[in-house]
Formats: sequence, structure tokens, C-alpha cells
Amino acid sequence: MEDVKVFGLWSSPYTQRVVWTLKLKGVSYEYYGEDLANKSSLLLQYNPIYKKVPVLVHNGKPMAESMVIVEYIDETWPPFPLLPQDAYERSNVRFWSKFIEEKSMHMMEFFLYDGERQERAIKETLETLRVIEKESGLSEKMFIGGNTIGLADIALGWVAHTLPVMEEIVGVKFITIDAFPHLHSWVKNFLEIPAIKNNLPPHELLVEYFKERRKVFLAMTCHHHH
Amino acid sequence: MEDVKVFGLWSSPYTQRVVWTLKLKGVSYEYYGEDLANKSSLLLQYNPIYKKVPVLVHNGKPMAESMVIVEYIDETWPPFPLLPQDAYERSNVRFWSKFIEEKSMHMMEFFLYDGERQERAIKETLETLRVIEKESGLSEKMFIGGNTIGLADIALGWVAHTLPVMEEIVGVKFITIDAFPHLHSWVKNFLEIPAIKNNLPPHELLVEYFKERRKVFLAMTCHHHH
Repeated sequence: MEDVKVFGLWSSPYTQRVVWTLKLKGVSYEYYGEDLANKSSLLLQYNPIYKKVPVLVHNGKPMAESMVIVEYIDETWPPFPLLPQDAYERSNVRFWSKFIEEKSMHMMEFFLYDGERQERAIKETLETLRVIEKESGLSEKMFIGGNTIGLADIALGWVAHTLPVMEEIVGVKFITIDAFPHLHSWVKNFLEIPAIKNNLPPHELLVEYFKERRKVFLAMTCHHHH
Repeated sequence: MEDVKVFGLWSSPYTQRVVWTLKLKGVSYEYYGEDLANKSSLLLQYNPIYKKVPVLVHNGKPMAESMVIVEYIDETWPPFPLLPQDAYERSNVRFWSKFIEEKSMHMMEFFLYDGERQERAIKETLETLRVIEKESGLSEKMFIGGNTIGLADIALGWVAHTLPVMEEIVGVKFITIDAFPHLHSWVKNFLEIPAIKNNLPPHELLVEYFKERRKVFLAMTCHHHH
């Protein structure tokens, strides 16, 4: 009997990576929603270093870091592998997974700031999207490094689902069919996968949630920087 | 016949990760030293995204990002595996490898700045070392996640070899036997491995090189920030 627990936050794109991967693999799990203002003692015990969601506990063994968890799930439940068989193709997917992971926080900065800093952040997000559009092979394949969903797609998943929420609140639109035709198709392909489509937080709730987060964050940064 | 090429910089800790891994595995390769002020057109062609060393080219196929390369080498040449057999232990090593990789640039900041910013950077480096000292299991094992050298040790390798050069130039000492007994042992264990010991850039040349780098960097940052 497998005992799988996820400690997460419904609105967190990092939690979603783990949930999507478990759903893709058909793994049953118990979900424990965390309150970030009042984290459970279990979460702090399981992730003493970052004290963050998501955490996966498999047969009593905890682990943290969404992409590390996703790779663990992929190795532990082999059906629908997220990495190609070929070592060179695998390294290519790992390269993009790492690139996306390292850029994700920066790509969200347009949402966390205002004014000049926001303008700069918008330029940087566009530049990162341009690199993915041109270099990640999406002009030839449906997903990053293949025609089935993989590790790098899971890393980029928030761009399909949470980015539009942030765009709506700020009033910008990055991924249009004209500016990023391949990424535009990728978003469609990604959201058509049942394990993804059926496991998305409701858009309207996300808009409400992130509106509030932006307010809190802007109040904090104004206080510090002006 | 294997055709393995490395494009690197003799003083780069990231290049060393790749060189050490190839030496550990006993893989022969041709080494191409790059001049960062005048990068070769091959380097730019092989790593269009970062335009950085190291790059590995295996049978004509290029790849970039030191830790992605190290994992590729580990999968392609199985002897002396850098990841444990057990999936949970493997995810633990990947967690630390990622942690170290993400912190490495920050841990070098004490070397790149002066004054207040340097003081802050020193505190942050100490804090990161404290987390590794206490949480990475070095109190129980010789290396991170095991008693043989692994992926996370390769990621941390610069701390054994390049950090002392930076410390010497700045005039600080982080890893003493009193402050970090486990890391202190780890440095010794790491440097005793023949593939590491026999493939280190000469200390005196590194001191000279990094002294010059620090001068250039400080001149740049003074200009920008004051």
C-alpha cells in the first residue's frame, strides 16, 4: 500500500506541478491544504530548510522542492515518463527545466512591482519568453523536447494557467498568437491534457486571490523603496 | 569511438565540475580553453543561450549548464555513479545539488563587493554554510547523501578549492574546524579523491587570477552604485 501525502496551497503554481504530475501518473494521494499565515507544524518538520509548500511524503519519507519532487514521482511511478529514453534528449529537457525554473520568479516580477521596475520586468519576461519560443524546439514539437508532456513542460505549466491571471490583473498580454505562435500552441496543447485540464484552480478564485497578494506586495515594496 | 570535447576556462569552478566528473569516470576528452574576452565562434554556436563555459560536445552533440552536463556524464558513463540507487536517496542528493547550485553565486558575493554589501554577503554565506553543515547529513556520512562522492559534492566542489582562494584575497576564513567541523572534514575528504586532487588549477595562479577579477569587479560596482 502506497501512502502519499501532499502538503500544498491551492493557488500555488509550485504545488500544481506536484499535483499535475501525480494526476498524470494516476497516483492517489491525500491532500493537506496549508495556511501560509499559520503553517502546520508538520510542514515545518518536513521542510525545515525552506518551510514552504509543496512537500511530498511518500510512505513516511518527506521531500521538498517542486521540481525535485516531480522527478522523484517520475522515477517512482514509471508510466507516462516525463523524461526521454535517450540520454542526450534527457539532458536537453533537463536544461530547459532548469532554465525555466531559474527564470520563473523573475518572470513573475511584472506582477509584483509597479512603475519603472515593472516596465523593466515586463521587458525581461518578454526576453525570457522569446528564448523559450525560439530555442526550446517548440517550433518542431508539441512539447519541450518531445511530443508528449515532459519535465520542462511541468516546470513551465504556470505560464499556461497562472500567468493569464497575473496578466489580467496587471492589464498586459504576453503570449499572443502573433508575438509567440509556438508558445501560444504550447499553452493550448498543455491545457488539453486531461490531468492538467481537470486539476486547475478556478480562474475567478485565482484572480481574487492574486489581486489581494499584489496589493499586499505593492504596499510592502512602496514602504521599503520610496 | 567516443568523441568528447570540453570548452572551458581553467579558472572556472563550473568548468571544474565537468572536468572532475570526466576524470572520475575515466573518460578521455579534448580540452579547448576559451578566452572570455574573445569567445570562440564554436562556443557561441554550441551555447547560444548563455554563451558561457563549460560546454560539453559528445559525438558532435553540444550541451551547456555544468550540472546538466555532470548528470549527462553520469548517465552516459555508469562506473562510479554520482547518484544513489534508491529513488528517495537520489531525490535527497538532487535536493542538495539544487540548493548548492542556487546558492553558489550568492556565496561568492563577499568576494565581489566591499563595505556594507560585503558584510551582508559574509553573513549570508555563513548562513548558507550553516544549513549545509547541519542539514545535509554530513555529520553521518563522508559526502552529501553517501560515503562516496556524488552529484551534490560536485556542485559544492568549488567550496573546497576556489573558496579558499577568495578567502585568502579578502582576508576572511569561513570553514574552520571549530565553526564547521563537518564541512571541514568534507573539504579534506573531497580533496583526497585522486580525480579531484590531480585536477586542480594551481593555487598561486588562481590567487593571481581572482585578485585581478576582484579589482575589475569592484571598479565596475563603485562606478554604478556610488
